[in-house]
Parts: sequence; C-alpha cells; structure tokens
Amino acid sequence: MSERTYTVVGVGAVGGYYGARLVEAGFQVHWVARSEADHLRRNGLRIRSPRGDLHLEDLDVYGPGEVPPPSDVVVVATKATATASVAPLLAPMVAPGGAVALFQNGMGGEDVLAESLRGVTILGAMSFICASRTGPGEVFHADYERVTVGEWTPDGTPSGMTPAVTALVEDLSAASIPAAALDDLLAGRWQKLVWNVPFNGLAVLLGARTDELVSDTSARRLVVRLMEEVVAAAEATGHPTPPDVVDKMLANTEAMVPYAPSMVLDHEAGRPLELEAIYEVPLAAAAAAGASMPATEVLLDSLRFIDRRNRAGDDR
Amino acid sequence: MSERTYTVVGVGAVGGYYGARLVEAGFQVHWVARSEADHLRRNGLRIRSPRGDLHLEDLDVYGPGEVPPPSDVVVVATKATATASVAPLLAPMVAPGGAVALFQNGMGGEDVLAESLRGVTILGAMSFICASRTGPGEVFHADYERVTVGEWTPDGTPSGMTPAVTALVEDLSAASIPAAALDDLLAGRWQKLVWNVPFNGLAVLLGARTDELVSDTSARRLVVRLMEEVVAAAEATGHPTPPDVVDKMLANTEAMVPYAPSMVLDHEAGRPLELEAIYEVPLAAAAAAGASMPATEVLLDSLRFIDRRNRAGDDR
Repeated sequence: MSERTYTVVGVGAVGGYYGARLVEAGFQVHWVARSEADHLRRNGLRIRSPRGDLHLEDLDVYGPGEVPPPSDVVVVATKATATASVAPLLAPMVAPGGAVALFQNGMGGEDVLAESLRGVTILGAMSFICASRTGPGEVFHADYERVTVGEWTPDGTPSGMTPAVTALVEDLSAASIPAAALDDLLAGRWQKLVWNVPFNGLAVLLGARTDELVSDTSARRLVVRLMEEVVAAAEATGHPTPPDVVDKMLANTEAMVPYAPSMVLDHEAGRPLELEAIYEVPLAAAAAAGASMPATEVLLDSLRFIDRRNRAGDDR
Repeated sequence: MSERTYTVVGVGAVGGYYGARLVEAGFQVHWVARSEADHLRRNGLRIRSPRGDLHLEDLDVYGPGEVPPPSDVVVVATKATATASVAPLLAPMVAPGGAVALFQNGMGGEDVLAESLRGVTILGAMSFICASRTGPGEVFHADYERVTVGEWTPDGTPSGMTPAVTALVEDLSAASIPAAALDDLLAGRWQKLVWNVPFNGLAVLLGARTDELVSDTSARRLVVRLMEEVVAAAEATGHPTPPDVVDKMLANTEAMVPYAPSMVLDHEAGRPLELEAIYEVPLAAAAAAGASMPATEVLLDSLRFIDRRNRAGDDR
C-alpha cells in the first residue's frame, strides 16, 4: 500500500470513480459523504466500467459533522454549486504539506477554496470521462478517462510544473488513470470549457444527447460557434488552448458513446445547474479581457430561465 | 352590402377572423380552404371574441381544385410555409385592377407571390392580434386586433400611400378593425419582426408563454437582445422602425393576455415552423446590409434542430 493518503469529498461519478481506482491501486482513501454516508458504509461502492467492474466494501466513510484524519490530498468532487459550502470544512482534512485538488468542471472554484485554505496548496483537475452516478454508491463509467492537473495561483499566472502537481499525476498514473500535468491551470480550465460550454448547455436546452448535437447540421454549427467563442476568450485572457482543440473535441465526441452530460442529469434531478462555474465565471473573465461571447450569453440566459422554472417545479 | 369583394385563402386564425369581420360589415367574401372546405360548408365559421362572438353560416366555400369568381382583394392568410404552393393558384382569383394582400408574419412572401402574379398589385399586411384556430372553422380571438398595410415594390423602395393600400385600410376600418396605411412595407415587416423574432422562437425553445418571457429576468434580457438585433438590422437595410418600438412591444406584451404564439401551435401540431419567413429571409437581408444578428442566428439554429426532430416524430 502506498504511503500517500487521500480523502474524497463528494462521492458522485467523478469522486466515486477516481477514488475507487486509487483504492484499487492500494492507496488509503477516506470518503466524505452527506446523504449517502450510511448507504456507503452498509453497501460500499460499485463501479461498472469497461475497464473492469469494482465493488469496494468496508469503506472508511465520514458523514455530516465527522472529520476524517488529515491526508496528503483532499479530492473535492462535489458539484460546483456546493464548493462554497464545502470549502470551510476542508482545512482540518489536509495533512501538513498536503494539497486540496478540485475535480470539477468550470472555472473559479479554486478561488473559492483559497479563501478558506490560506497557505494550502490548491490544485485544479479536469476530468475527461463519460461517467454518471446511477444511484447511491453506484457509478457507471461508459467511456474515456483522462485527468489533467494544474496548480492554482492567486493571480492566475502559470505555476509551471510543481511538486504537488507531479505527485498527483504520479498517483493517478499508478492507478492506471491517464493523467497529465499542466503548467497553466487556467489554460486547462478553458480547454475543458471548450467541451462543457456547448455540450452541457445545449444538451439541456435542446433535450439532446452528445451524438445528436454533433450529427445534426444546425446543432453542430451551434456547438462550433460556442466552442470558437471559448477558444477566443481563452486566447484573450492569455491562457490559449491548443490550435486544433475544436476539431479534436468534435472528433472525440463523435467517437464517444451517446452521452447525456452531467448538466442534463442535474436538470432531470431538479438540482441547480452549474451555471456559475461553467458560464458566469468564464463570461466575466472574457468580458474583463474584452472578448465578446454572444452565443454563450444567449445560452446562459436560456439556461437560467429553464433552471429557475425547473426548480420551481414547473418544467414543461 | 359593399361593392368590393374579397377572397380569403387559408381559413386559419387570421384569415378566419378578418374575413368574418368583413362579412359582418357587409362585404362579399369567398373562402378558399383545403382540408377544412367541407367542414366550413356544413358548419360555417365560429369566432369567439371579446368584441362579440360570430357564427357565420352559408359560406361561399371553394375546396381544392375549385376557383372562386374574381374579387377585388385576395387575402392570402396561409402559413408562410405554404406561400410558394399557393402563389400559382391566385391569378384567376383577382379581378382586373384588383390586389393580392398577404396577411402573414415574416418577410419575403410578397416576392414569392410576385413571381406568379406579374402585373398584379401586391400588398403586405401585418396583423397584430392574439388569435388562434382552436379547431376546424373555429377561431378564438383573445386580445388585440390591428392591421398595418403597405404595397410591395420589386426593389423594396417605399411605395408611398397607394390607392390599393388606402382602399384596403378603408375596408378594414369599415369592418371596425383598427388599420393603418404604411408608406414603407418593409419597415412594417421589420417592425412586426421585432415581436415575432423573439416571442415565436423563444416560446418554442423555452416552452414558455409570452407572460413568462417578459416577467423572467433572463428571458426578458433575451427578448430585448433579439429585439435590438432586429431594430439594428431594420436600420441597416434602410427601413428603420420607430425609435420606441422595443419599449412599446414589451409594454404591449406585458398588457396582453398570456399567449402561446403561432409557432408554438405549429410546433405542437407537428407542422413545419415558419423559420424561413421569420428568421432566414430577415437574416439574409441583414447580412446583405452588413448587420450582425448573432443571437438570432443561435435561436434559428436551435429551432432548426427542434423542428427537424419534431417532424421526425421524436420530440423529447
């Protein structure tokens, strides 16, 4: 068993999947859950995956109000909408010299964590995976798995390759998870947004899966328009994405199993949508850099309307 | 009974309502219908209206293949999607010196009619009315009624006040329908689009009524953004709308009974949406004049996707 220890906060698709792979590779993992804590204690965690199913039992689970022993890396894998409420609970979970790694979509979450974690190393991780939580303690991994990791800095300047980034990438690699270190976290965040901005929002707005969005002429034109706005915004903010990112993301999506992005699952479950992290923070960053994102703004306002009505319980 | 005669082609909400008011005022009206012809012959036409209900019987109805006697004004009130198929049938319906008046939303329909009607005066009429066809030969008039009329010219230059425009406005006024003559038909078409572009499309995309779209902050911002794009396009093409048109349309919509625009009814009935007349032709005119309408383009591509899927019978 490795000496490095992990705590996973938020046992959904992302936290559940990567945490389980770390356990499988011999890392000690503490699990922090809210409503699912009892279920996890009793029934463990089940992963269905083309890489092999897993059923982990005897998990070290901490429920509301319970604090796990300090560990080297605290993986925060809650919804972005929960970051602000989770942040104040994290400091006691981090061992001296340890790090908090935010496994989330969108932008701005690390800044929220930093306000509660002065002096703690904060990492951001982008997870490229088709996985969904299919029930309490149940994750279905459909396709892909890849993680990129970068280190947060207060002013967004690239951190370069840091020891904390390298260590997390090595641990993920030890768990057979393809992982890469980034010298510029924000460039990584923008790159992930090139996919999330079009596919999360359009899937909710149009009630469509990823395969429908890339195969229909009009929907695909919307996808490309949104992607190009994100690419231009990334460039304007000084964190450019790779030159072929749009074509690559389209090709990956075409090759992917038909998939309902996480925002669709949130919408269907009546949970608040991750609009701040995926749309509002990036739009504000783009605006501050003088980049215009009109299609993204239209999508955001449409989603705000849908989200508000959905959570008012009147979703026609 | 007036000496002026009318033929109404397309007995939906608009054709049915205005035709019935003309009959009520003593004009002779021939009715050209397709699938509803037999129903209209047998059961007549019923109008429910805050201005007073009407039940007209013994209508002079012409079904498929039947040609009414020539009349002074042929009112074409079909869906815009049917204009091209109706146009070649109209010439024998027009008396010498008569006119064809297109009562439709959108832009470009008069040009389509003109190709089949060389030498015939072509009018365009914008109908501001909350009315819907609730069944064969049944129209529910909920709110408002106002018509503006202008004369088509081949190159779009303002016609000024012409005898044909004045005569139609006088007849409508005689039927107690508030009506106004326009010296610039295209300015009238753009002005109507200031309402139709946001409300028709957003009502379908967001599954919302007009009152929801003007009362929700985000949806209202979308409405205003789309309206402002139409206003700027109208200006760029040389057919400007009145300076206060956005505020007035918003105020009118707030005062209006909650209303599902015609595009919603088309969508729910699985009929093709009027995307060409309401979006594609105006976008092409704007582009030719160098005006950019990004939000309108996003809305159009979203509607194309929805329309295509809806008519493929798979509307989730």
